[in-house]
Amino acid sequence: MDITVGTVFLSEVVGTAMLLLLGGGVVANVVLAKNKGEGGGWLLINFGWGLAVFAGVTVAYASGAHLNPAVTLGIVTSGATEFAPGVPVDAFSILAYIGAQMIGAILGAGLVYLAYKKHFDATADPALKLAVFSTGPEIRSYGWNLVTEIIGTFVLVFVVLGFGRAGDGELESPAGLAALGALPVALLVVAIGASLGGPTGYAINPARDLGPRIAHALLPIRGKGSSDWSYSWVPVAGPLIGGGLAGLASTALLPIV
Amino acid sequence: MDITVGTVFLSEVVGTAMLLLLGGGVVANVVLAKNKGEGGGWLLINFGWGLAVFAGVTVAYASGAHLNPAVTLGIVTSGATEFAPGVPVDAFSILAYIGAQMIGAILGAGLVYLAYKKHFDATADPALKLAVFSTGPEIRSYGWNLVTEIIGTFVLVFVVLGFGRAGDGELESPAGLAALGALPVALLVVAIGASLGGPTGYAINPARDLGPRIAHALLPIRGKGSSDWSYSWVPVAGPLIGGGLAGLASTALLPIV
Amino acid sequence: MDITVGTVFLSEVVGTAMLLLLGGGVVANVVLAKNKGEGGGWLLINFGWGLAVFAGVTVAYASGAHLNPAVTLGIVTSGATEFAPGVPVDAFSILAYIGAQMIGAILGAGLVYLAYKKHFDATADPALKLAVFSTGPEIRSYGWNLVTEIIGTFVLVFVVLGFGRAGDGELESPAGLAALGALPVALLVVAIGASLGGPTGYAINPARDLGPRIAHALLPIRGKGSSDWSYSWVPVAGPLIGGGLAGLASTALLPIV
Amino acid sequence: MDITVGTVFLSEVVGTAMLLLLGGGVVANVVLAKNKGEGGGWLLINFGWGLAVFAGVTVAYASGAHLNPAVTLGIVTSGATEFAPGVPVDAFSILAYIGAQMIGAILGAGLVYLAYKKHFDATADPALKLAVFSTGPEIRSYGWNLVTEIIGTFVLVFVVLGFGRAGDGELESPAGLAALGALPVALLVVAIGASLGGPTGYAINPARDLGPRIAHALLPIRGKGSSDWSYSWVPVAGPLIGGGLAGLASTALLPIV
Repeated sequence: MDITVGTVFLSEVVGTAMLLLLGGGVVANVVLAKNKGEGGGWLLINFGWGLAVFAGVTVAYASGAHLNPAVTLGIVTSGATEFAPGVPVDAFSILAYIGAQMIGAILGAGLVYLAYKKHFDATADPALKLAVFSTGPEIRSYGWNLVTEIIGTFVLVFVVLGFGRAGDGELESPAGLAALGALPVALLVVAIGASLGGPTGYAINPARDLGPRIAHALLPIRGKGSSDWSYSWVPVAGPLIGGGLAGLASTALLPIV
Repeated sequence: MDITVGTVFLSEVVGTAMLLLLGGGVVANVVLAKNKGEGGGWLLINFGWGLAVFAGVTVAYASGAHLNPAVTLGIVTSGATEFAPGVPVDAFSILAYIGAQMIGAILGAGLVYLAYKKHFDATADPALKLAVFSTGPEIRSYGWNLVTEIIGTFVLVFVVLGFGRAGDGELESPAGLAALGALPVALLVVAIGASLGGPTGYAINPARDLGPRIAHALLPIRGKGSSDWSYSWVPVAGPLIGGGLAGLASTALLPIV
Repeated sequence: MDITVGTVFLSEVVGTAMLLLLGGGVVANVVLAKNKGEGGGWLLINFGWGLAVFAGVTVAYASGAHLNPAVTLGIVTSGATEFAPGVPVDAFSILAYIGAQMIGAILGAGLVYLAYKKHFDATADPALKLAVFSTGPEIRSYGWNLVTEIIGTFVLVFVVLGFGRAGDGELESPAGLAALGALPVALLVVAIGASLGGPTGYAINPARDLGPRIAHALLPIRGKGSSDWSYSWVPVAGPLIGGGLAGLASTALLPIV
Repeated sequence: MDITVGTVFLSEVVGTAMLLLLGGGVVANVVLAKNKGEGGGWLLINFGWGLAVFAGVTVAYASGAHLNPAVTLGIVTSGATEFAPGVPVDAFSILAYIGAQMIGAILGAGLVYLAYKKHFDATADPALKLAVFSTGPEIRSYGWNLVTEIIGTFVLVFVVLGFGRAGDGELESPAGLAALGALPVALLVVAIGASLGGPTGYAINPARDLGPRIAHALLPIRGKGSSDWSYSWVPVAGPLIGGGLAGLASTALLPIV
């Protein structure tokens, strides 16, 4: 059945809000004071984010569950002609996807704030509060941080496009990604976190980083500090470059067999 | 084949008892003295509870494996007309589901006590003994604790309803959930524990919390303390509100495609 | 195609040897000196054993992958008439399964010794060397240790029988278990380790415990201590009782729907 | 559709590069200074490597995703006649597979260097830098290290061949491995790491160890030390012996049923 752009918009808002609620939530659990998961470690964060993708992709089946402007861009540069049955790849659809992802990310970050309200209050360090919302590098070096984000997002989008081709030898409609099951994408995000998340915290998604940063700036968080706008362009530009390159590379490196 | 309410009742007792035996068991392993898993951390608890759901859902296939009054309520508010083939959504069926869940939860908690008898004896702190049975907040604030439980249970029920719709575009009979495989629900519960369990310990299920609390009050546990009845309404009311809202929201936010 | 008892025997030897090689191996990695996984924790052991089951079940597809006398017994008490196509449930078949499981377990334990030879030499404490082979309780109490092993094995066999019934409403030939995929059984064993392994180390399999204990007694391990024969009956009797009860219970508690 | 040797070559380069990027990456995250995953532990490394296999196998569907000369050799000794539809098992194909695996491994290791450039700079110990690229034993003993690598690789190749046979009773074309899903192989590699990785770090793949060792020798890594060439033959010879033996053993121990 054909899908309308309105349905795509709603689906991406819901899925990206779910992604950020659970993704921001696991960081809150590990870094904010007096939580049961406090100090739970990197593997807990990796699984939390991977399973956030699992839940987000599940509820955004109607739009093909991009949840990430870098994925949307990678599908464009891979040469696809439809995002979903009846939804052509054009400027209007692209705006609908990316706009919905940004709104969903802001909403999801707001829900994390509600779920962890008393723990934000009980935490002294403003940097830990920002870490619940947005990524930051361990060694600040805009050039190398950008390289890391490009590589991480390339892996995400390239392998996601590989899921589609490995299935039956044709590039399936991206809307088919959700039906393939959300588990492979979740495992892939655990993989990227474990393997490429060390330097910058693997934003690998402009909406995942910029949306919550806006939420951090707007919300009345007690004792919050800077939203670190000087770094904010890296987790936007890196993922868009990586995702766009992955779409292009897929046409040469993922053969139809 | 049509299913009787008696079969539903038996199935929910068995599944919820399995859920609580394994769910309470992992907490016992981590918090009680002299266990091999003592101090095993939050990720171990998250996986233990997730896989407890996996086992419980597997053996409760006959009833659709609700195992949770908030799931039963969410299916009602989503507008479903049958819980299982031949089992209509009516007051009698609802009572059968919830009654069985409570009985199963009490039985499962009792089995945990038997499996860990010597370790209950060897543990001094009464709060750790209660933690094997029921949840408690890290920062006691009934209002915010309620918000956290509402959000966590909303995620549980909303995504579970999403599993049903993502499959083939129609809301399947809830009895089909077990046949879909118990793994997605298990992963979802790991996700909620990792991401939203920090403040209150993610009851997200009135039977899971109230049933074992009753067991704690009744069992002859050596050196036990209070069953903390003053908090007990939060993990009942929060999950019911969250589950009911998720069923309502599913009709607007999970489109048929 | 019909399967001969000779094929069953070979398959159970291979599968149980694989189970013990990987299962004993993860304990060796965590407890013996100078390993990369030394001190890796209970969750690592749980995943290691679960995935040992995954590998063992995969290569023992021809016999239905019991790998455990308690599973064989539970299938008998559940009233099944065939272990595999052409292999009737009779005394001769039962002896073939259990004999092969014991031989495979001894062989697998011997391979662990070879893979970790230098680390056995480098470890001083004889109790840690025995722990690679066989289980032991944290609080020695034969009666309560037996209860814990009964409950753990009941869960194993009961849920495994549940996998068969949940599929299509009929109890499938147990040989179908391997074809169902080894993953659910692996996850179940992770669950039992996390939730019920604390007091006794979850033998839940007489061959898994007794076979390696014989290997421990026979192998020329440098500086080894007692094989702890006084405890050895518990992880044999407990699993047989638990598995037998689970088979009986399955006829009443796992309805055909 | 028939596949050309050129497609096989490209597919193995891409898949092995992905494998080493994510596999080397998780070690970099855990051992190099100032990473978010620093000190993350053995289970994080095990999952990282397992999921690296998951991603690598996914994108190398066209060639059957060997990604490992020991797997290629094991398929040869198992008596298979085709590596993929239209790709015969002959010396030319074998060279194409192994050559591509070596090139891919070198490329992947180079990408790890780029992603973690500032963290290589910030780490003082040359041994930690080498550990990102190649394996080394905890107790140096060439003979016993070889035994450990033989056993580990035997398990890898034997169980992978078991996946093919368990499916439908016939040895499928190895090209079918990717279509079977990358998840079972990923879980198997987690298992081998957890259970047999303690002594030598589980190379279990000559290309995975030798390719990055060459990259380590060539790259301008600040403050790097020796590439430890004296050990380098062990993780080449051991895996080839283990893989070859597994192929032979499969003909006797994995019956067609």
